[in-house]
Amino acid sequence: MNKTKENINSITPRSKDYSKWYLDVIDAAGLAENSPVRGCMVIKPNGYAIWENIQKVLDNMLKLRGVKNAYFPLFIPKSFFEKEAKHVEGFAKECAIVTHHRLNLNKEGKLVPAGLMEEPLVVRPTSETIIYSMYAKWIHSFRDLPMIINQWANVVRWELRPRPFLRTTEFLWQEGHTAHSTKEEADEMTLQILEVYRDFVEDYLAIPVIKGIKSESEKFAGATYTTCIEAMMQDGKALQVATSHMLGQNFAKPFKVKFTDKNGNEQYVWQTSWGMSTRIIGALIMVHSDDKGLIIPPKIAPTPIVIIPIWGKDREKNDVLSRAKKIATEIISEMNCVVHIDERDERPGPKFYDWEKRGVPLRIEIGPRDIANNTIVAVRRDTGDKIEVPLANLIPKIKELLSNIQSDLYKRALRYSEKLTQRTNSYNAMRNILTSKEGGFAIAYWCGDQKCEVKVKNDTMATIRCIPLEQKQEKGQCIICGKEALKKVIFAKAY
Amino acid sequence: MNKTKENINSITPRSKDYSKWYLDVIDAAGLAENSPVRGCMVIKPNGYAIWENIQKVLDNMLKLRGVKNAYFPLFIPKSFFEKEAKHVEGFAKECAIVTHHRLNLNKEGKLVPAGLMEEPLVVRPTSETIIYSMYAKWIHSFRDLPMIINQWANVVRWELRPRPFLRTTEFLWQEGHTAHSTKEEADEMTLQILEVYRDFVEDYLAIPVIKGIKSESEKFAGATYTTCIEAMMQDGKALQVATSHMLGQNFAKPFKVKFTDKNGNEQYVWQTSWGMSTRIIGALIMVHSDDKGLIIPPKIAPTPIVIIPIWGKDREKNDVLSRAKKIATEIISEMNCVVHIDERDERPGPKFYDWEKRGVPLRIEIGPRDIANNTIVAVRRDTGDKIEVPLANLIPKIKELLSNIQSDLYKRALRYSEKLTQRTNSYNAMRNILTSKEGGFAIAYWCGDQKCEVKVKNDTMATIRCIPLEQKQEKGQCIICGKEALKKVIFAKAY
Repeated sequence: MNKTKENINSITPRSKDYSKWYLDVIDAAGLAENSPVRGCMVIKPNGYAIWENIQKVLDNMLKLRGVKNAYFPLFIPKSFFEKEAKHVEGFAKECAIVTHHRLNLNKEGKLVPAGLMEEPLVVRPTSETIIYSMYAKWIHSFRDLPMIINQWANVVRWELRPRPFLRTTEFLWQEGHTAHSTKEEADEMTLQILEVYRDFVEDYLAIPVIKGIKSESEKFAGATYTTCIEAMMQDGKALQVATSHMLGQNFAKPFKVKFTDKNGNEQYVWQTSWGMSTRIIGALIMVHSDDKGLIIPPKIAPTPIVIIPIWGKDREKNDVLSRAKKIATEIISEMNCVVHIDERDERPGPKFYDWEKRGVPLRIEIGPRDIANNTIVAVRRDTGDKIEVPLANLIPKIKELLSNIQSDLYKRALRYSEKLTQRTNSYNAMRNILTSKEGGFAIAYWCGDQKCEVKVKNDTMATIRCIPLEQKQEKGQCIICGKEALKKVIFAKAY
Repeated sequence: MNKTKENINSITPRSKDYSKWYLDVIDAAGLAENSPVRGCMVIKPNGYAIWENIQKVLDNMLKLRGVKNAYFPLFIPKSFFEKEAKHVEGFAKECAIVTHHRLNLNKEGKLVPAGLMEEPLVVRPTSETIIYSMYAKWIHSFRDLPMIINQWANVVRWELRPRPFLRTTEFLWQEGHTAHSTKEEADEMTLQILEVYRDFVEDYLAIPVIKGIKSESEKFAGATYTTCIEAMMQDGKALQVATSHMLGQNFAKPFKVKFTDKNGNEQYVWQTSWGMSTRIIGALIMVHSDDKGLIIPPKIAPTPIVIIPIWGKDREKNDVLSRAKKIATEIISEMNCVVHIDERDERPGPKFYDWEKRGVPLRIEIGPRDIANNTIVAVRRDTGDKIEVPLANLIPKIKELLSNIQSDLYKRALRYSEKLTQRTNSYNAMRNILTSKEGGFAIAYWCGDQKCEVKVKNDTMATIRCIPLEQKQEKGQCIICGKEALKKVIFAKAY
C-alpha cells in the first residue's frame, strides 16, 4: 500500500473544488467530524487543541483589560426571550426548545418525552436576555458600573445547511456583556474590544482583517450598531471573524437595568456585547492552508515543531533518536515550546506528509549525516524551504524561522487579500468582480439605502460586509443609484 | 449605616443553621446566585475564578497522563440514549428534552414552539452514549488503543430540590472517556484517575478523602463498578467529590466499539469514564469555611493575598499606598502570585470583614508604624493569627505562611473527619452515630446484601458511601444481619 500517494491524493486541490478541499483539510488534519446529531460536529483533539490555545491567549488579553469570567444558565425562559422585539425576531427561527424534563417508558417499551413544562425553555442562541435579567439585580448605583463580564460557553442556533466550524447548530464561543453609565463609555468599549479582536487575530492567527461597521440589515438583532472584523478567504469570499455590538439601551429598558447616578437620578445603563467563536478556526483553515493540508501559524499551533528522526540501518536508530531527544529538550527548555518527536517505525516520507497535512509549522529532520555534521535540517511548512542549521546556532535560528513563518503567513494573506480587493466606481465593473470565479472584495461608495444593498444582492449574491472604520471623509456617488454617498463600503460574497 | 456589624451578622452561624450558613457563605463571598431558570444557578465571577483555577490545575494533571481534550455535542438522539438499559434507567427521569427547533408567533402575538423534530434530543446528562458512538467509528485496530479523551462541558440533570454547587439542574464538569484492549488496562485506568483526583483534591483543595468502591445500589448507571473519593463535611455528612467508573463492555456492546487485536480477532473494547464537577466547590466551602465566611486554600485561591493599606491622616495615605505597591510588586515578581491592594476610601475594619468573608487566605496590613519599623503585619484567614514580618524576611515568611495555611487547613479537616469517624460492631451504636446531631462516618462490616443496606437507610437515612479500597483482608460479621462479611464499609448521611 503506497501510503504516500494515498495521503497526497486524499486532499482535493483548491482549484478543483474549494468546498471539498475545505472538508478534506479538516478531515486529513483530524480537526472535526460530523456527529450523529444533525448540524452538530465533534471537535476532535487536534481541532480542540487549537481552540484551547485561542481561549488561553484571548482570555488573557481580555482579563488584562479588566474582563471577569462568569457562567450563566444554558436555558432561557421563553418569556425573557420575548422581551426585546428585534432580538427575538432575529433568533426565533433557529432556536432549540426544551419542552419536557423527563422520559417515560411507554407500553411499546419506547421512551417518550414526559413532564411537560409550564414554560418552554430556549437553549441559548446568545445570552443577552438571561444575563441582563441578572444585571438588573446586581446593578444599583453608578458605583457598580462599569460591569464587564464574559463567559466561555456553548450556544445553539439551528442550522439547516451546517458546515464544520463555519455553521454548526452548536458552537463554542466567548460572549462579553458590559453595562456602563454613559453612552460614550459604551461606544468606547465596543471599539476597544473590536481592537482586542483585531490585535489577537492579526498577531496570533496571522489573519489580516478590516475593522468596520455593519449595515442596518446585517447588524445583530437588538443592537444599535454592530462593529466587526472581516477577513478574506482564499476563494475571495469574506468571513466575519468577530463582532462587537453597541446595544444602546435596547436591552436595558425591557430588562430594567437601571442605576442611580451621582446626582441621585435613576437612569438606564448603556450596554455592549461581543463575541468570537469556533468559527474562527474555519477562517484559520481557509486563509492559510494549501493543497497539502492545514497550515497553522506558529503562535497558535498546539505543536509548533515536529522532529523526524531518520535512520537507514537499525544501528543508526539509537544515535538518531538520542540526538532528537537532546534537541527537543533544548528547544523545550530554551523556548518553552511544544516539540513532538515522531518515533514511529515508518519511513520518513509518510511521516512528512502526515505532519504536513496536520499543519505543523516547522519540521526538523535529523539523520546520520546531520549527526556527523552537527547540523539539523529545518523545513518550513508554509514555503517548503529546507534550511540546514548548525547546532551551535540552533535556538536563535529556530526562533527566527518560527517568527518568519508567522509574519510571512500574515504577509502572504495580506497580499492575497489586497490583490483581490478592488476600488471601483462602475457598477458593471463591480458586478464582474463579485461574480468572477476568483471573487474578492469590491470597495465602492454606497448611499446608505437598503434598496441599493438589495439590488447588489439580487444581481451578484454579494452583500455589504462592512463600512470600514478607517476611510477618508470624502463624498462620492453611490455605485448603485448614483446619489450622494458619504461612505465607502466593502461588497463581497460571504460565509 | 454600620457596615461592619452588618457584615458580621449577614452570615448565620453553623451551630444555628448549617444549611442557611452554607447559603450565606456563598452569598457573602459572591460565589453564585439562583437564576430565574428553575434549578440553574449563575456562577458569579468570584465563584467562577475558583472553577477556573480548578480547571487549570486538574487539566494539566490529566494532560501529563496523556489525556487529550475534545468536544462532543450537547444533544443526544433519544435512540442512542435507549441503547444501554441500566444507563437510561438511571437518567431518564431527570433529562431535559428538546422537541422543537423554532418559535413561531401565534395570533395572540405569543411565541410558540414549532418545527417539531422527528426524534427528540436529550440534553446530555453525561456523554457516554454520544461519545461511544464516535469511538465506534474511530477505533479499528489495537493500534488505535488506548483512546483517552476528556471534555470540559455543561451537563443537565433535572433537579427538584436544587442547592447551589451541590445539586443544580445544569452544572459544569469534566468527563473523561477511555477505551482499552484489555480488562486489566481499563481496571488500572479507573484507579489511576481516582488517584489523580485524590492527589488533586488533597493537595490543592486541602480536602482529605477516602478512596473506595460504591455498592451496587450507588454505582453509576451502566458501570461494572464505580470508584469514588468521599469527603466529610463539617456537619458530619459525606460528599462524593469525584467518581471513576469501570464500564466493562457494557457500552462497547450496544455501541459496537470493536477492535481487531494483534491476532486478527475482533473484540469489544473495555471502557472507563470519570468526572469531577462544580460540586467540588460545594465541598470546598463546607470543609474549610467558618462563621466569618469562606476560606479558600492558598493553592487554589484566585487571590491568595490582599494588602490593606491603613492610614489615619491624609498625608499618610501616599506613603502607605506606595509601600503597599512596592510590596505587591515584590510578591508578584518573586512568587508569581496574585495580590490585590484594597485602595478603597473605607475604614480598615469593613475591609477586613470584606476579605474575610471572601476567603482570601492571607491579609497583609501596612500602616505608618509598619513603614517606620520596616515591617508588615500578616493575618491568617484560617486562624486569625497576626504575625509581624520584617521586610528583610518578607518573601520567605509569606511563602511559609501560605504553605502553613495550606497544610493546616488539610490537617484541621483531617482531624475533624477522624474525630467524627467511628468504628463499631454494634448496630445500636451505629444507629446512634448516624442519627446524632454531629453526624459522622460509621465504619462497620457489611455482608454485601442490599437488604441490609436498605435497612440502614430506613432506620437512619444513611447509606453506604463506599467500600474503602485500603483495608485489611479480614473477615467479620455484618453489622446488620450478623452474617459473614469480607469488607468494612462507610455508612453516612450524604449530600
